[in-house]
Amino acid sequence: MADINSPVEIGVTTGPIRGSRKVYVAARTGSGVRVAMREIDLEGGEPSVRVYDTSGPYTDPNAAIDINAGLPQLRREWIMARGDVEEYDAREVRPEDNGQLGPDRSGGVPQFPNTVRRPLRAKAGQNVSQMHYARQGIITPEMEYVAERENLGREQIAKDREGQSWGAAIPEFVTPEFVRDEVARGRAIIPNNINHPESEPMAIGRNFLVKINANIGNSAVASDVASEVDKMVWSIRWGADTVMDLSTGRNIHDTREWIIRNSPVPIGTVPIYQALEKVGGIAEDLTWEIFRDTLIEQAEQGVDYFTIHAGVRLPYVPMAAKRMTGIVSRGGSIMAKWCLAHHKESFLYERFDEITEIMKAYDIAYSLGDGLRPGSIYDANDEAQFAELYTLGELTKKAWEQDVQVMIEGPGHVPMHKIKENMDKQLEACGEAPFYTLGPLVTDIAPGYDHITSGIGAAQIGWYGTAMLCYVTPKEHLGLPDRDDVKVGVVTYKLAAHAADLAKGHPAAQVRDDALSKARFEFRWRDQFNLSLDPDTAEQYHDQTLPAEGAKTAHFCSMCGPKFCSMKISQEVRDFAARQNSDSYLASENIRRETSAEEAEEAREGMEEMSRVYEQSGRELYIGQGDRERD
Amino acid sequence: MADINSPVEIGVTTGPIRGSRKVYVAARTGSGVRVAMREIDLEGGEPSVRVYDTSGPYTDPNAAIDINAGLPQLRREWIMARGDVEEYDAREVRPEDNGQLGPDRSGGVPQFPNTVRRPLRAKAGQNVSQMHYARQGIITPEMEYVAERENLGREQIAKDREGQSWGAAIPEFVTPEFVRDEVARGRAIIPNNINHPESEPMAIGRNFLVKINANIGNSAVASDVASEVDKMVWSIRWGADTVMDLSTGRNIHDTREWIIRNSPVPIGTVPIYQALEKVGGIAEDLTWEIFRDTLIEQAEQGVDYFTIHAGVRLPYVPMAAKRMTGIVSRGGSIMAKWCLAHHKESFLYERFDEITEIMKAYDIAYSLGDGLRPGSIYDANDEAQFAELYTLGELTKKAWEQDVQVMIEGPGHVPMHKIKENMDKQLEACGEAPFYTLGPLVTDIAPGYDHITSGIGAAQIGWYGTAMLCYVTPKEHLGLPDRDDVKVGVVTYKLAAHAADLAKGHPAAQVRDDALSKARFEFRWRDQFNLSLDPDTAEQYHDQTLPAEGAKTAHFCSMCGPKFCSMKISQEVRDFAARQNSDSYLASENIRRETSAEEAEEAREGMEEMSRVYEQSGRELYIGQGDRERD
Repeated sequence: MADINSPVEIGVTTGPIRGSRKVYVAARTGSGVRVAMREIDLEGGEPSVRVYDTSGPYTDPNAAIDINAGLPQLRREWIMARGDVEEYDAREVRPEDNGQLGPDRSGGVPQFPNTVRRPLRAKAGQNVSQMHYARQGIITPEMEYVAERENLGREQIAKDREGQSWGAAIPEFVTPEFVRDEVARGRAIIPNNINHPESEPMAIGRNFLVKINANIGNSAVASDVASEVDKMVWSIRWGADTVMDLSTGRNIHDTREWIIRNSPVPIGTVPIYQALEKVGGIAEDLTWEIFRDTLIEQAEQGVDYFTIHAGVRLPYVPMAAKRMTGIVSRGGSIMAKWCLAHHKESFLYERFDEITEIMKAYDIAYSLGDGLRPGSIYDANDEAQFAELYTLGELTKKAWEQDVQVMIEGPGHVPMHKIKENMDKQLEACGEAPFYTLGPLVTDIAPGYDHITSGIGAAQIGWYGTAMLCYVTPKEHLGLPDRDDVKVGVVTYKLAAHAADLAKGHPAAQVRDDALSKARFEFRWRDQFNLSLDPDTAEQYHDQTLPAEGAKTAHFCSMCGPKFCSMKISQEVRDFAARQNSDSYLASENIRRETSAEEAEEAREGMEEMSRVYEQSGRELYIGQGDRERD
Repeated sequence: MADINSPVEIGVTTGPIRGSRKVYVAARTGSGVRVAMREIDLEGGEPSVRVYDTSGPYTDPNAAIDINAGLPQLRREWIMARGDVEEYDAREVRPEDNGQLGPDRSGGVPQFPNTVRRPLRAKAGQNVSQMHYARQGIITPEMEYVAERENLGREQIAKDREGQSWGAAIPEFVTPEFVRDEVARGRAIIPNNINHPESEPMAIGRNFLVKINANIGNSAVASDVASEVDKMVWSIRWGADTVMDLSTGRNIHDTREWIIRNSPVPIGTVPIYQALEKVGGIAEDLTWEIFRDTLIEQAEQGVDYFTIHAGVRLPYVPMAAKRMTGIVSRGGSIMAKWCLAHHKESFLYERFDEITEIMKAYDIAYSLGDGLRPGSIYDANDEAQFAELYTLGELTKKAWEQDVQVMIEGPGHVPMHKIKENMDKQLEACGEAPFYTLGPLVTDIAPGYDHITSGIGAAQIGWYGTAMLCYVTPKEHLGLPDRDDVKVGVVTYKLAAHAADLAKGHPAAQVRDDALSKARFEFRWRDQFNLSLDPDTAEQYHDQTLPAEGAKTAHFCSMCGPKFCSMKISQEVRDFAARQNSDSYLASENIRRETSAEEAEEAREGMEEMSRVYEQSGRELYIGQGDRERD
């Protein structure tokens, strides 16, 4: 094992995403707030396209990345300037925080060298939640940042905005005041613990862009703290808006410290996991005191939102016993077991106001866990699920009484015709608090493809109003996702979230689709790659059959070849139409000859290119396939 | 090049799909019709599950497969018994049929050794379409086959049928009379050319299971006739209900012969592709005579449905000139060019009744092509698209006047909020003729993942009423799909089609989901793999982290490990609940101790298994991920 006192060698992926550069846009308010975005420059004099950027300093070539030091504290000044926080001595880290790690730390991971020993908390009687400020009418720098970020630097509305928003109130242009109002109403949250000043503010709410979450978790062997940090950086590179650290087993505390100090996105956790480790994995041995201690421990480290399964109440447990797949939430099953073993009401439910007191002292947002969500198509939308949902609605209002931010977790496994009922009931039961769903999977018969079965449900429920989508990878239900699975999961959910933004009519959404479509029609291949969610994969697929540089400007690809490229023919059709006099077509014969000549020439060039390709690849070139090919 | 007279060595994938066996179910009518299905046997005394089987004799270990001979002629007797067909001398194959292939056949592929020289056609004055029989009140063996096949061998309705069918008329139980009635009304088609007697009858219609199509196409080098046949067999193995041969370039005729003679599923083509090759690729040189000759050529070979772009009319072409991406249908752009160059109405439109005369003499179904479908989100649901759709509706009625079967092709690229309008307008314009859509893709920003962007749209439009979904592979818009891409495309569309069946409330649909969910909850891993759409991938993913045979019965997987498996805890919760007296819980303390002991034991075994895994894989084991893990 590496010497725990020497700095850790952690390799993370840095540098710009291909074809784009980091830009910082100053907030219109002149407050000095600068918002990170990604700008994609295009060829042929096309205007560049700005896209939402979750990747943090890692994609900025001018940023010095030092994993052992952590990221710069973007928000520290903003927090201190409010004058409502105090520094104090952090709770001592104990052996049970890292799975009974002894003083010799054998089996432990290296400790983060730059840990904050004096965290911040609200001064006595103060409330530092963004919701509290919003309700006082205060527009914070965090709210300004969110407003600029959601607009993607647009000065005015998109011309051709369309959509069906199912009652959402998406503005033409997001102002800081709009953000404040949404947070004040509880329709959006800005999760950012005052002890995570490295985070770039982002909003989760039905009237903002749909967000996605990626899950990572700690490893059972010491050296893997590096791979967890790498996985976090990798997932935000491809678009994860928040990351949940679902660590279990050993080294939970230390691994989390490495992740938070290096994360520019909000970090969520499920504190019951660590609490369970502290009692040796025996659910019945959990107590309020141990749970409370875990909340403080994680609050001081800077966790931005907590999943709390306070809706799993004793009377609901027997409802789940009738199910096909029982309780599929780990936190939910742990609490159900505790309730039954003690035949007591859940301490999470009974102590809810005390938990809220802690949340508001650090500005931690609730992610009220759906411990009784269905785990199969058969169990979807059943009694247990909705009984819990209405309890979560009751708890939402209790949290709001103390101005604490709340989002609500949702399923799971739901066939398409039952998805909307989930959204409608959640809006009604929880007063429009943001919905945060896992998929849902629309069928159970495709293990190995559950990023897709769930992506279908995610796109739909995102359209209906879900604010954040928790990703699912191809390994779901089967095993451990690796780095590649994480990327596939993130990109799949990013496209689902974007499809939802388009369908809702978010003004910022269609700009990128239009730019890519235009590049496609004009055969600007590099622009197509650069505008896509995953430029590397797009180019790699293209180059498998047409690797030559010349093919990057060719007016065809290997799917159809030069003679059968409908886009090429279509451009000729457009030329015809342009040249034709609307009430006389005498010229058509000339047009025909002219064009045949053009075409013969292009086809000749094309065929030469293709024959080179045959030699290179020895593969088929005219297979018909999909859009340009089916017919 | 291989000696064209020696039999071709063609390797195709044969043998049962893992965990299942081929069964033949005799039709209830006692007519002797036997329907192929796939039966998945389960462990633990669970009843076996029957699933729809498109794979033909290739998955029957008792079938002798000889690619050089072709498949047995399942339908030959049925066709001859009707007494309305005659044999005649086939049209001579000409050099232009294979791309100006000379008499020495240099550059040609081997000819299929077992070609039928005397094809069938309707006797003078006869109409051999299934629609014609249906309208005479005749129930054909083809209709009986379809009825049995759609029921998946069920004797009665599913107990817990639910769904939202958007006005479809899905019966509890499919009878031959129901099939006849649907075909007579034009709400379903059974595409099976009398010269393709090898095909197993299947129905495409809104009130039947949603079907999927896979595209293949011929290769530019001779030896690849083998890979095309292999690709056809590969795609039906994973669930393609029909296959389109989109061959262009050389060897079109010969390649198609190999495919049809070995295909148990209907084969579709786009005849304009071959016609264009016959005129050297110059659209303006196309004539009705050359097109007609091509229809006869393909009719005699046994093509089951033709994509005909008869809706691309001269007046609509200027509408497309305004678009972001013009015309993205190859056939559509070819016809648009022809219309403009000649300034004439399309000969496909003007000669439509003559085309229909040919269709009814062989029972070829129309797939009326959407030559003006949108190629981008920007162009979705525009004037050009719907102008063509209403023309397709007009042509549908003309085809029905001659009792010829029709389906209608649909988009393409459509954001989610505009998908339903496509379905609603199609139902209205085309009198409920089956809709056959390509995706649609719900966003344009994810090249490399367009099987997913389109799978999202496909699941939705399938739910709304689309009868068949044309697959899209990950290579869409970028290049040539390989064998792996074909499988990913087929499985993605199979899960989308199944999700649609579930949401529509098809009585046969949920049985498989429930069986898999139950297997999951009971940790019958092998059953989970075998019940899935792709058992090989499911097991491979599982075994990447838990390869040991013992893990196939372990009560956890590597996602959560033994202590955090919610399903395991949930089963304990169920045991608690079962043992608890509903009005007294005196026993709870004992239950608790008992269970802690059980758990400690299971955890111990579990950890031993896990530690073996660490050594084997050296990989992380507790990463949290998705459904059982997020919380």
